[in-house]
Amino acid sequence: MRLRIDLAYDGGDFRGWAAQPGLRTVQGELTTALTTVLRLPEEAQVTCAGRTDSGVHARGQVVHVDVDPEVSKTAARQVTQLEVLARRLNGFLPRDVRVRRVTEAPAGFDARFAALWRRYAYRIVDDPARVDPLTRNHVLSWPRALDVAAMDQAAGTLVGLHDFAAFCKKREGATTIRTLLDFGWTRAEDGMLVGHVRADAFCHSMVRALVGCMIAVGEGRKEAGWAAEILTGLRRDPNVVVVPAHGLTLEEVAYPEDAALAARVELTSARRSGTEVEG
Amino acid sequence: MRLRIDLAYDGGDFRGWAAQPGLRTVQGELTTALTTVLRLPEEAQVTCAGRTDSGVHARGQVVHVDVDPEVSKTAARQVTQLEVLARRLNGFLPRDVRVRRVTEAPAGFDARFAALWRRYAYRIVDDPARVDPLTRNHVLSWPRALDVAAMDQAAGTLVGLHDFAAFCKKREGATTIRTLLDFGWTRAEDGMLVGHVRADAFCHSMVRALVGCMIAVGEGRKEAGWAAEILTGLRRDPNVVVVPAHGLTLEEVAYPEDAALAARVELTSARRSGTEVEG
Repeated sequence: MRLRIDLAYDGGDFRGWAAQPGLRTVQGELTTALTTVLRLPEEAQVTCAGRTDSGVHARGQVVHVDVDPEVSKTAARQVTQLEVLARRLNGFLPRDVRVRRVTEAPAGFDARFAALWRRYAYRIVDDPARVDPLTRNHVLSWPRALDVAAMDQAAGTLVGLHDFAAFCKKREGATTIRTLLDFGWTRAEDGMLVGHVRADAFCHSMVRALVGCMIAVGEGRKEAGWAAEILTGLRRDPNVVVVPAHGLTLEEVAYPEDAALAARVELTSARRSGTEVEG
Repeated sequence: MRLRIDLAYDGGDFRGWAAQPGLRTVQGELTTALTTVLRLPEEAQVTCAGRTDSGVHARGQVVHVDVDPEVSKTAARQVTQLEVLARRLNGFLPRDVRVRRVTEAPAGFDARFAALWRRYAYRIVDDPARVDPLTRNHVLSWPRALDVAAMDQAAGTLVGLHDFAAFCKKREGATTIRTLLDFGWTRAEDGMLVGHVRADAFCHSMVRALVGCMIAVGEGRKEAGWAAEILTGLRRDPNVVVVPAHGLTLEEVAYPEDAALAARVELTSARRSGTEVEG
């Protein structure tokens, strides 16, 4: 029996998603919670949709875990019992991780390989008079005013199927070809700048490099056309700064209809085998 | 020369506004920052509009402080220099307090006694599936669904000039008569419940007792009419729980036009001499 767990966390006190010995990670906390609450004989094996980096947050992380209903004493197929499981997990988990929902995953579901796309948001306040201490854990404070129209224009030039090597940390044997489905910037009523970016998958630190590129444009240090130039260059440019992790939040992961899950998994795992799908 | 300082803070790590020896308070931090940055020979004397309790936040706190331009080496009348002062204060202050603006106060201004009203917001999420770890420092998580229409109805019955003794911690010689200008509840698009309350002033723990009363109504444990009954009773009712501080934020303080400041100060200080104007 495969469970789908929808998860939110404040990444500030975590060394990212992936479990590492001796470090506080989201995967580590969730694994311990599942293993304890379900009284599993071995550690739960959890797989997530977006392996967020150290300090990156999530409101829409999706995880799957396989449990044997015979072994587990509390898990069961009934929705009501999965609600109890969610409550117990939240009782066990620290307050910076919250389980939002536990459901039985449909046949063929895989949190990582069945995902159609991931959507991240990067939040910036660029006016000292608007800095809000209540949201300082997930909004970047930038000391100079940014031109949202220029940033939005530059972002639009990157949308599409491209090799994003210029914005990725290169890893041996891993492709940097991605489909950027959306990338745009808006200014909310309260003055906050929000960059929304959606892609089939992201490589390591890609969103934060894209945002760094946009900030150079927003400050007027670079023209909007510079983003496309960097992209075409296919190599990291020292002028592109990787911005801090705490402004970044994994907002949503989308999956196809149940009937199309298995085909999606087959396609994705063949295409991206060995690569990381990170924030 | 009197300065007006607009201030925001995350109250979570503070023992409230008012300076207390050996405790971390907002007044204490701001006093130290002003005294240091302005190189004052004595401690700066700062007065605020709303003496928030331990754990209560502020986005719209207003403070005044008198500085002698002869003594101060950096303060000056020019706006640009006040911007420099704001930046230096923020450089000195911890990240959970932010100065949003420093301006020269108009003649007759007094952060406390010239205020026309204070507006607070109390934020609640009443659905476990919507609990957001990123806002857990300033939003109360409530385990059961609340009826926002019933809460809004009950809140409306308390608006007006009343003796709020039933919702106040009684203090010797202090009046509990207040004018509640607005009190209402709305549910935002993301499901968050927000209670907005505006009054000429509040007595100690009054907003949190009002919210506790509303939650009893929102859960259906009490009818909407119960709030008015409590009010008329003029004494604390054990059924009214004072809710946790971390859901409460001082959002805004309003002042009259410059020409009316002195008259307002005279009126308020005569009427409320010896009372506290707290959250």
